[in-house]
Amino acid sequence: MDHHHPNGVNTNTNTNTAMQPHGLEIAIDELETHQVVAPPHKSTLRKLKGKLKETFFPDDPLRQFKGQSWQKKLVLGAQYLFPVLQWGPNYSFKLLKSDIVAGLTIASLAIPQGISYAKLANLPPIVGLYSSFVPPLVYAVLGSSRDLAVGPVSIASLVMGSMLREEVSPTGDPFLFLQLAFTSTFFAGIFQASLGVLRLGFIIDFLSKAILIGFMAGAALIVSLQQLKSLLGITHFTDQMAIVPVMNSVFHHVDEWSWQTILMGFCFLVLLLLARHVSMRNPKLFWVSAGAPLVSVIVSTLLVFAIKGQNYGISVIGKLQQGLNPPSFNMLRFGGTHLGLVIKTGIMTGILSLTEGIAVGRTFAALKNYKVDGNKEMMAIGFMNVVGSFTSCYVVTGSFSRSAVNHNAGAKTAVSNAVMSVTVMVTLLLLMPLFKYTPNVVLGAIILSAVIGLIDIPAAYNIWKVDKYDFLTLLTAFFGVITVSVQAGLGIAVGLAILKILLQVTRPKTVMLGQMPGTSIYRDLHHYKEARRVPGFLILSVEAPINFANINYLNERIFRWIEEFEEEEDRLKQQKSSLQFLILEMSAVSSVDTSGVSLFKELKSTLENRGVELVLVNPLAEVIEKLKKADQVNDFLREDSLYLTVAEAVASLSSGMKKGQASSMQDLPL
Amino acid sequence: MDHHHPNGVNTNTNTNTAMQPHGLEIAIDELETHQVVAPPHKSTLRKLKGKLKETFFPDDPLRQFKGQSWQKKLVLGAQYLFPVLQWGPNYSFKLLKSDIVAGLTIASLAIPQGISYAKLANLPPIVGLYSSFVPPLVYAVLGSSRDLAVGPVSIASLVMGSMLREEVSPTGDPFLFLQLAFTSTFFAGIFQASLGVLRLGFIIDFLSKAILIGFMAGAALIVSLQQLKSLLGITHFTDQMAIVPVMNSVFHHVDEWSWQTILMGFCFLVLLLLARHVSMRNPKLFWVSAGAPLVSVIVSTLLVFAIKGQNYGISVIGKLQQGLNPPSFNMLRFGGTHLGLVIKTGIMTGILSLTEGIAVGRTFAALKNYKVDGNKEMMAIGFMNVVGSFTSCYVVTGSFSRSAVNHNAGAKTAVSNAVMSVTVMVTLLLLMPLFKYTPNVVLGAIILSAVIGLIDIPAAYNIWKVDKYDFLTLLTAFFGVITVSVQAGLGIAVGLAILKILLQVTRPKTVMLGQMPGTSIYRDLHHYKEARRVPGFLILSVEAPINFANINYLNERIFRWIEEFEEEEDRLKQQKSSLQFLILEMSAVSSVDTSGVSLFKELKSTLENRGVELVLVNPLAEVIEKLKKADQVNDFLREDSLYLTVAEAVASLSSGMKKGQASSMQDLPL
Repeated sequence: MDHHHPNGVNTNTNTNTAMQPHGLEIAIDELETHQVVAPPHKSTLRKLKGKLKETFFPDDPLRQFKGQSWQKKLVLGAQYLFPVLQWGPNYSFKLLKSDIVAGLTIASLAIPQGISYAKLANLPPIVGLYSSFVPPLVYAVLGSSRDLAVGPVSIASLVMGSMLREEVSPTGDPFLFLQLAFTSTFFAGIFQASLGVLRLGFIIDFLSKAILIGFMAGAALIVSLQQLKSLLGITHFTDQMAIVPVMNSVFHHVDEWSWQTILMGFCFLVLLLLARHVSMRNPKLFWVSAGAPLVSVIVSTLLVFAIKGQNYGISVIGKLQQGLNPPSFNMLRFGGTHLGLVIKTGIMTGILSLTEGIAVGRTFAALKNYKVDGNKEMMAIGFMNVVGSFTSCYVVTGSFSRSAVNHNAGAKTAVSNAVMSVTVMVTLLLLMPLFKYTPNVVLGAIILSAVIGLIDIPAAYNIWKVDKYDFLTLLTAFFGVITVSVQAGLGIAVGLAILKILLQVTRPKTVMLGQMPGTSIYRDLHHYKEARRVPGFLILSVEAPINFANINYLNERIFRWIEEFEEEEDRLKQQKSSLQFLILEMSAVSSVDTSGVSLFKELKSTLENRGVELVLVNPLAEVIEKLKKADQVNDFLREDSLYLTVAEAVASLSSGMKKGQASSMQDLPL
Repeated sequence: MDHHHPNGVNTNTNTNTAMQPHGLEIAIDELETHQVVAPPHKSTLRKLKGKLKETFFPDDPLRQFKGQSWQKKLVLGAQYLFPVLQWGPNYSFKLLKSDIVAGLTIASLAIPQGISYAKLANLPPIVGLYSSFVPPLVYAVLGSSRDLAVGPVSIASLVMGSMLREEVSPTGDPFLFLQLAFTSTFFAGIFQASLGVLRLGFIIDFLSKAILIGFMAGAALIVSLQQLKSLLGITHFTDQMAIVPVMNSVFHHVDEWSWQTILMGFCFLVLLLLARHVSMRNPKLFWVSAGAPLVSVIVSTLLVFAIKGQNYGISVIGKLQQGLNPPSFNMLRFGGTHLGLVIKTGIMTGILSLTEGIAVGRTFAALKNYKVDGNKEMMAIGFMNVVGSFTSCYVVTGSFSRSAVNHNAGAKTAVSNAVMSVTVMVTLLLLMPLFKYTPNVVLGAIILSAVIGLIDIPAAYNIWKVDKYDFLTLLTAFFGVITVSVQAGLGIAVGLAILKILLQVTRPKTVMLGQMPGTSIYRDLHHYKEARRVPGFLILSVEAPINFANINYLNERIFRWIEEFEEEEDRLKQQKSSLQFLILEMSAVSSVDTSGVSLFKELKSTLENRGVELVLVNPLAEVIEKLKKADQVNDFLREDSLYLTVAEAVASLSSGMKKGQASSMQDLPL
């Protein structure tokens, strides 16, 4: 590693010589070896290509195809579209065994949840089961995650239910409502798939973790309130979602409360929460919480059947028709008055379910150390929903809770989804009559125990601790959802998040650098107390791209720096050494636009009037190019106003200073 | 300056020792002296205060008040509100003389332009003169620019005319139209003033230079087309603005063309353009172009009067009533159907006129080396328009053309505005009858010759040369304005500009650094060809704040870097030395949010699974704080994973490497 050796020596000489005139020429040599050079030329087209690639293909999906025979390419292509072809061939009986176990486990969870979430979306319970049958099969073929357990989820169900209810009453015109549900599912799928195809996946990144935490908590709260209907056995309940109306209809119908229902709901809720607690304490016992819902359904059904519960005002699901998913493409409505609503609902539920699905996939991929391709997943989820909308299913995605169970139950591949879906099929064919006496209150309890997990106080506290602004967006999302509406809540929160980004650009940080004693390192004076200002030099580092949005601010700010600097200098020294050089450390200026360039021109001229010289340090490739194109005279790219490091700039410039200056700098207290 | 001396030696030793075990402890000492420390603690409140100050008071307007007696403070405060108190006291006769000359010069320009622009806004010509009388007086008291010449401007006139015309026909219901014009002027003033008061001036920064150039060119084109009506003497003309309808009504009324009108218009247009050309060639002859419009008005009026032009189908202004501005606050309509339109128009014209006014002020302030306070100017312009809306004036601001004349004519203070306004007053009182025979065609020619200056091809070309994306926004603004509408054109263009900022954040640059041979400097490998990669180290610098919008991208991108790096290493060396350290140079990461923090945690754990260690170099104050708050174990702030410079990191880490590695690195070709 002797290639390191020269270093010490060089730095040595060039920093010395800055001080001792005799070494000057060496210094200059040294500096010349560190010339700031223009980057290798690239045609506009190539640059554009590069930019587009970084924007849309950061993962460079085609790399694996490079230098392959066309047969191989064909295979790889097929495998890319149908991941099943990757793991299918070497699928073993051993894997199958564990997949079956996992599949049965999630099925036991999927059936009660399916029924419950369908009710949450104001859809017939059976639609929930339909949705747990077809889509999982599709995903098993297309999906690239090994742990994702597909099915209806609470958030998407809630959002779809509440949004459609704005225009159509699920009780007034259930058939139309169903049609709209399937149609928005279709649009959701199209939207998700096209995000994947157009590689616009990054759009969902704008739902930051903070926003999601706030949003999910809010949604969970709303869902829980909705459950009061079934938990208290109220028959006349508001159609609205917001807290106030719900609370009204709860306390204006106290007469309808049925103590039997309440008692039953309470018992099963305690049971479910207990089970959840156990499994959380000891993940090995995941099956406790996984099995609990099904158990409660069975037990409660038998109970109601035995004691003729309906006589005690315990409402039950009632008769469910038997058989597999009927086709539903004839039910899609692409016209009419509700088209706008349906598209809006589709996009909304699409984004939300996508966010959950992708997040789940990434989480477990990270755990097991394999990679899921975001854009590929979007296509899979999207296609799955489109197919779903043709087969009487509503929006589905990979759910957190079920995927966790799937993972803990030892699922190895997407086959577990297939197993689950077969189990659901059997249920649809044979077991439907058994649900006739299942009490709604238990479904309410199941939903409640499920959504409670969505409220994550510790995470929220952590965000508060680390970043107050993020916490603000969190609160916005939370209160927006519970007081106004899901769309509004999310919209405002995302707007706030974007506003922050814009503010960071319009008000970039500028920090004043000083020299770390006895080194060639320059750092923020306010951060590193031992750093020392170099008299005659004002060294600023700008920490953002310079563009139309911030040039006026930067201009004002820089001149304030200069004023403050000169006041300070006057204060510090008996013998005044006025400002001679303004050094801009540009390492953090990732780009400039035409306005940015004009700022430099303006700065240079105004500073020259004040007898101050503008010096740029380490501008990045793009910045150099633009400056070069901008000023014909190449004024910025003059050797003596462009350096690679602050140290070199200070060294060579101060060596050029008048003697008087130099001496004045010697007796500077350090 | 011997304080520099230790440096060479130190760096020397510590880079040596990195290679020679014996010097190790010195290296460590050395490194310890460069500890990355947490920034001095600040309370959340103080941080918030700081942020707010940087956002809203970057110019720190209260600094001058610090440590002053309260009488002094009072005086300063008064001077802040009424700049006239600053220059008034030492105003001299000498100054007055040059101000009178300038004032008369701009008056000669203001009178014909006032009449013409009023017609451009579909308002009675006299309103243009009213608007050149009252507002300039107000500005003379409040304004802080010495060169701004206040009055109606083409852009704002055009926009107001076209926007109001969307709902009310100026010919159908001229009185209502006038009411709406005054009301939107009022809202424009309120909006401008409040921008200044709330210190939200940076909002106008979003109209970047590129957008403005495109917009002004488009507007100029539209205005010119509108002039075809008077230039060709067409009587039946469309009310619309867009190219197509205008062209239609031009060529569907060829029968209405009057050759006398065309001839006259042509002659005067040539005259005016010639005058403009002369003055542009030689600024000393500014008075040629300044006087030309008035001369043409006088000459043409006399001509028409002499030859009884109206008999030859030359349309004339007709009788104008005499006297000063009548009060108009009773004409403001704050209710009714058109309120929305009026507010929209007010904001639109407000922003546009503000942008022009501020730009003019800044330009000439820079020329004469004095400072105009943006927010103060906004209040002045806003107040001036509010007063205007009470006294039968429509939107005014500082116009480029007139201010240039004012400057060239040697204006010293805002008094020149007062002189102009007095001249206009005299005109209003005595000379109005003379305009009776002024032909509209000449007004058309005046407008045309004025707006042609707004089309700035060279500037557009420059933008194309420097930044293609900026040029795209320019084109968007241009075509948006001429094909759709002023609002749409500007809206889309600004949207594009913001989108670029967001893209820069969602797709931040990551560059791979290498060592500049024989130095402790690390720079972009693709930019500096001589830079060398250090085997076993992947050194990346991230060039943007890390937040929710880009963590997923950064995660993917970094792992692609790692793959590429390892392929490269395999290719380069016979004897494989695998990746051991990922060094993230954080100097350019100006901030992180909670998502950013989680990215680091995730990276660290995934890298550890790969046996790679994550090392951070020079994180900035804010980043350090957040990392500290985020991980209790202080994992990121461990000494051996946090360094002040890349060189030190490489030095101390490679000194820690196994012998085998070290040797393998010796025989690396450099």
